[in-house]
Formats: sequence, structure tokens, C-alpha cells
Amino acid sequence: MEAVENKRKKAKAKNLQFLRNTNRAAIIRELVLGNANSRIELSKQLGLSRMAISAMVNELIEQNYIEEDAGVPVTAMPKSSGRNPVMLNVPNKCINAIGIYIKRYEVHCIVADIKGDIFYHDFRVLPVDADNGIFISILYDLLDRAIKKNEAYYLSGIGIASIGPLDIYNKKIFYPPNFYKIGNIDLGQLLEERYQLPVFLDNDMNASAVAEYLYGNNRQYGTLVYVGFSSGVGAGVLMKGQLLHGSAGFAGEIGHISINPVGPLCSCGQHGCVEIYTSTSNLLNASGMESTQELAKLLQRETIPRYVAEAVDDCRNALKTLLITIANLYDPEMIILGEIPQEISSVYITGMEEYMNKHMFHHGFQNIQVKLSELEEKAAYLGAAALVFQKIFSGTTVLPDHGKKENDV
Amino acid sequence: MEAVENKRKKAKAKNLQFLRNTNRAAIIRELVLGNANSRIELSKQLGLSRMAISAMVNELIEQNYIEEDAGVPVTAMPKSSGRNPVMLNVPNKCINAIGIYIKRYEVHCIVADIKGDIFYHDFRVLPVDADNGIFISILYDLLDRAIKKNEAYYLSGIGIASIGPLDIYNKKIFYPPNFYKIGNIDLGQLLEERYQLPVFLDNDMNASAVAEYLYGNNRQYGTLVYVGFSSGVGAGVLMKGQLLHGSAGFAGEIGHISINPVGPLCSCGQHGCVEIYTSTSNLLNASGMESTQELAKLLQRETIPRYVAEAVDDCRNALKTLLITIANLYDPEMIILGEIPQEISSVYITGMEEYMNKHMFHHGFQNIQVKLSELEEKAAYLGAAALVFQKIFSGTTVLPDHGKKENDV
Repeated sequence: MEAVENKRKKAKAKNLQFLRNTNRAAIIRELVLGNANSRIELSKQLGLSRMAISAMVNELIEQNYIEEDAGVPVTAMPKSSGRNPVMLNVPNKCINAIGIYIKRYEVHCIVADIKGDIFYHDFRVLPVDADNGIFISILYDLLDRAIKKNEAYYLSGIGIASIGPLDIYNKKIFYPPNFYKIGNIDLGQLLEERYQLPVFLDNDMNASAVAEYLYGNNRQYGTLVYVGFSSGVGAGVLMKGQLLHGSAGFAGEIGHISINPVGPLCSCGQHGCVEIYTSTSNLLNASGMESTQELAKLLQRETIPRYVAEAVDDCRNALKTLLITIANLYDPEMIILGEIPQEISSVYITGMEEYMNKHMFHHGFQNIQVKLSELEEKAAYLGAAALVFQKIFSGTTVLPDHGKKENDV
Repeated sequence: MEAVENKRKKAKAKNLQFLRNTNRAAIIRELVLGNANSRIELSKQLGLSRMAISAMVNELIEQNYIEEDAGVPVTAMPKSSGRNPVMLNVPNKCINAIGIYIKRYEVHCIVADIKGDIFYHDFRVLPVDADNGIFISILYDLLDRAIKKNEAYYLSGIGIASIGPLDIYNKKIFYPPNFYKIGNIDLGQLLEERYQLPVFLDNDMNASAVAEYLYGNNRQYGTLVYVGFSSGVGAGVLMKGQLLHGSAGFAGEIGHISINPVGPLCSCGQHGCVEIYTSTSNLLNASGMESTQELAKLLQRETIPRYVAEAVDDCRNALKTLLITIANLYDPEMIILGEIPQEISSVYITGMEEYMNKHMFHHGFQNIQVKLSELEEKAAYLGAAALVFQKIFSGTTVLPDHGKKENDV
């Protein structure tokens, strides 16, 4: 197996170009995220002079990245000192990105704008004989179509959310388990060469965490953990709005915390891993159910078969230990539980927040919220596009000075 | 109990003052950490032009923050194109900080320079009747003396490493357990007012992690986890050189991962927490030993009593699970094991790195090192001073333009 080469960046100093890029990006970010909607609010929020803000805003208006609200024209205002500021807005579909979501059986392709609106969505089911050639031709086909159908819009990059293991720095997919004959693909190189767009790759949990932060209902929580429960259990961890990657992108593998030394053997070689008790597929297996609907129906009965009750108890007890461990190790403001079918969500959510807050080590000093994801499946593919928007918001991916294509707005 | 108020900072934009501060700080940092030792190397390392670097370096020389190596004077060099660059150096004792380490039974006070040299060390044992008044007067006494004895040197701040729980943002000690009658002290406010120096507070594990990174033998590893084993077990987590605090400074409480649902009841309310098996004090209790020396002697015998062997096994098995969990959740480059008496260190280190690398989820893609701390007890108090140096290196605590005191160097 191939080891990930850690890319250690030199600690670069800052120059004027850096200032310009990050400040332009910050203005777009504050407007898009709704933290400010006028020059004066931008000035307060970003701590820059009104003059500096005005100069940059005016330039961004000329470049069509910002528009003044037509409903509140400056000239219509009374000239008294108390006049309302002109509202600013980033136009719809002004800055957009492609999101690719690589699941075990399908590939999704969306186009979203920087405000989180998904205005194009396509997908393909992977054939059972899929190898690298077939997989790549499907990817190309999805992307070619997406770009053709959206040629009117400025596309700032391609974000890919994928099952792992990945080399996120070199934008490479290793050999995901049970992924047909697909593996070891230099996705970044292939797509950057073909489409001449910046490409960003991250795992599906990390992408979902970014989507929840930027476009979920919990935008004010920049330090959050997104936990996905399906066949496996994993997490995406955001610290003050930035993904926690660790040294090589493997942080957040919370499914493989061994919580019972005499529990069942896990594929990772440990016993009693959290995933064994809490993944929705393991919960179904353990309770002997065919579907989550069947399980949900049973749980509404007055008497529940013992083996079902035990499976549910095991799941809930393991989840409690998991949530406490997440609280103790990451200290987030919020934990979001995702990929849970609605009909069995009560198994995962009822009473959990209270129990965790009582038993975490710093109980009494902090109140951490536990919520079900409201973005649901959208989290992963909107998150893919959001990987690009994150880079734009931080100024790492630079908005071209010339503005977006002229034929739109 | 009082909840920690999360201080959410506004996302400030960057101005020219910010540029100047961070670039001056970056030059000092690269020289101190040995990443560069000449203008040309600084230019390469920081990605700034030689002219920009030279201007800043010359100013820092005038202000006595940097000296040119007297052994290699510019004028003595041949004028050929291949002449050696002038070596640059941050003089000893040029930038210094006070470190306070608050332990359960003692308070240490050191003065160290930014290169990690501790040139003053004092401490007091806390009396058994210690309350806030006594504690604060001991602190003042330690600090008054330290400042008087080191008045020749420029002191840039006071860093405090303390047992918790803490409110690190408001620089406050809550009520640490078993800490006499001491608690609920606004340390930051008290000390900043009295000494007119910036004060930084963090827990002892976090401070130790910073010391290991800046002044240990593992300087190249900016993504590391320091684990301290004594009466409790906790961790300080560094990600790319920055402390992982979570939302309110409580991240890294790895001692309270429940790894056995039928294990002994822990003070936190869970069962079978890692701390119960792996803290050195619990290891002694479980093996029925009075001291680590006694345990060490026993372990060298050919036949070891069963209850001792079992305690050691329990400790090592729990440590394996802990290390794998740290690897899976934080993905560090290195894990440093601290606060382990040398005579029993083999219990904690032998075979651990290999086992962890084989069983972590991303095994084969990453190789994480596991090492014993070489700084040992120094880690916590040097770490206290290093909390100040971290702020200087990042440009957050600004080096005064006028330079250090004239009466030294």
C-alpha cells in the first residue's frame, strides 16, 4: 500500500496581493452568509475603514460580484443624516461550483451557487462491472453535460466528496472497500487537465460538515461535528469554520472507537467498535429487520421482541458513549447526526443531548447541542460544491478580477 | 456552576498593520526555530522578496531583536558572487516570558527566552490551608521576585499552565477538584492589572504540547498529541502548530473515553474510562504497589505476581485502545507520552507504536510515531512561557517597535 505523503507547506509571509484577495473574499463571504448587508455593516464586521470597504465594494460591483438593491436606490433616499444604507447583495448564480458526490453505488453531479442553491442535479448508477475506465468515462460524461448545460454561468471549480480512503492533498482516490474494480485514481490531475478548473477532494463526511455549516440551519456554529450513520459511521469535524484534517486527512474516524473489549470483532481488527452498534445497517442486522420501515413499525408496538429491544438498546448505549467521546475530544458547539432515515430517527436522537451534556467531562461549563441533519442527503453533494466555496471564502481560490461572464445576471 | 461564555470573534479583515506585525513575527519565528539563518533563506522560506526581507531585518537589527553573526562580518568576505550570506541570529535573552505552572500541590515560576532556555526557576509548595487569599499572595510573591531578579531583561508576557477546569478565553480558574479551598479566580484580570503584561492561560496538557513542538526534539511535527499520564490522563492537541481548543477550550479530554461498559465506575459517571486503567496512580493502585520504583523492581523478576501482571496488562490494553482512538480521531504525525516515571516507561512504550499503526483505521496510509517525552517535567512550565511565545510567533502579541531594554546584551 502507498503511504500518503504529507505535504508540509512552508509558512509563507503575507504580501499585498494576499491582503487584496482575502479582503475581497471576506466581503463576499460576509454578504453571502448574511453577516452584513451594507457597506457600513461590512466595515463594522471586518474592522476596515468605510473608505477601504467602499473602494473594494465598488470594484466588486463593477465586476458584477455584488449588486446594490434596486428596491432601495440611493437617489430616492432623503439626504438627512439618518438615511438608510444601500443594501448589498451577491446576485444569484453569480459564483457557482460543480459538486461531485462519489458514493459506493452512484455518482452525483450538481451545480450550486455560492449561496447554496442547487440549480442542476444529475447522477449515474455505477454498473456492477465498473472499473477505472468505466468509472472515469461516467465522470467525464457527467461533467461534460453539467458544464455544457450551465455554460452561461461562471464556474469557479469542481469539488468532489467521496468515500475513502483518499489522499486529499494529492486529490487521489485509493482503493475504497467494496467499490467494484475501481481504485488508485489521480482524480485531481485528470479533471484539472481536462476542465482547466481547480479541483478539491475531500471525504463525504467532511464535505457534509461544511455544507451544514455554510448552508444548514446552524450557520452560527462554526465548531461542529457532523456524524454520518449508514453502513459505516464517520465524522467531519469543523473547528472555527475550518475542517480538521489531521496530518494527512484521516481525522474524524469515530466509527472505530473500541468501546467494548469483548464486543464483536470489527473489520479494523479491534473489538466492539462504535460502528458495529450504531450504524443503521448494523442496527437492522442486529434486530433482524429487513428495512428501517419494518423496524419503525415494530418500535411503535406496545411489546417489542426482546432481540429488537436489545439491538436498539445496544445502539443507543454505544451512541451515548460516542457522543460523550466526541464532546470530550473535540468540544464542539454542536453535533449533527446525519444519514438517519426519518422513521427511525427517534432511536438516535431522543434524550441524547441531555445525557451527553450530563456525562461529558466538562459538564456544567458548556452546553453542546445535538441535532438531526436537516440537509439530509443534500449535505454530501452540496458539501462537494461547498469545498470550492470554502476556498473562495478564505481567499485561497481567487475570484478573477475581470468578474463573471457577461451574458448572465 | 458557571457556563463558559464562548467568545466568538468577528472575522476581521486584514490591514497593513497586520501585514507588518505578522511578517516581523514570521522573521523572528523562522530564525528562532532554525528554519532560516540568513536574509536569503528568510526570503525563500517566507516567499517575500529579498528587498522586503532586508528592510525588515535591518529594522529588527536596529531594534536589537536580531544580530548579525560577529564571526562572519560582511566586510571580511570576498566580493565575488559566491560570497557567503551573513548569518542572522536572535540574541539570547532578547525576548523573554514568565511561565507559571499551577499544579495541585505547588506553583512553579520560570523565566525563559524565546529560544527555550530557562534561566530562572522558583517554586512554592501550597500550604494545606490554602484559600484564594493565600494562593494569590503566593502567586504575587513568585511573580514580584521573578520580575525583580530579571529586571534587566525584556519580558513580553506571562503564560500560565494550570490544572483545570479553566475558562481560557476569560483567563479564569474555576474549581479544580482537590485543590484546597482555591477556586473561581480571575487570574487574567488580577495579573494584567498588577504587572501590565499580557497574560495567557491554558491547561497544563496544552502548554506541554506547545513546549514539545517548539522546544522538544520533534520540532518538525506540528500536528502532534501530547498525552500526560499521572493522577489523571489528558491531552494537548496541536494541529499544524496551533492548539485545538474546540469551542470553549475543553477539547482533548481523552482520559474519559469509556472503553469498557462493565468496567469500574469513573468519577465522570461513565464506566471503564481510559484513565482508570492507564494513569500511573491507578496502575500503582491496581498492582498494589507503593511506588513506581517498587513496581519497576517487580517487573524485572522472572515471575510476576498475577495481580501485578493483570494490572499491567489492563493498562497496556487500554493504552492500545487509547492510542488507536487518538490516531483515528486526530490523525497526528506524532503522539508524545509524558509524565511517566522513567523506571516504568517500558510499560507504556514497548510495542505501542507498532500495534497502533497496524490497527488504526487508516493503517498502511500513514505512519504515526509514538515517543516518550524528553522534556519531562519541564514540558509544563516551559510550555507556560511558550504560550506567550506562540502569540509572538503568530504576530498576535506584537513586538514593540522600540526594541528591548537598552541595558542588556
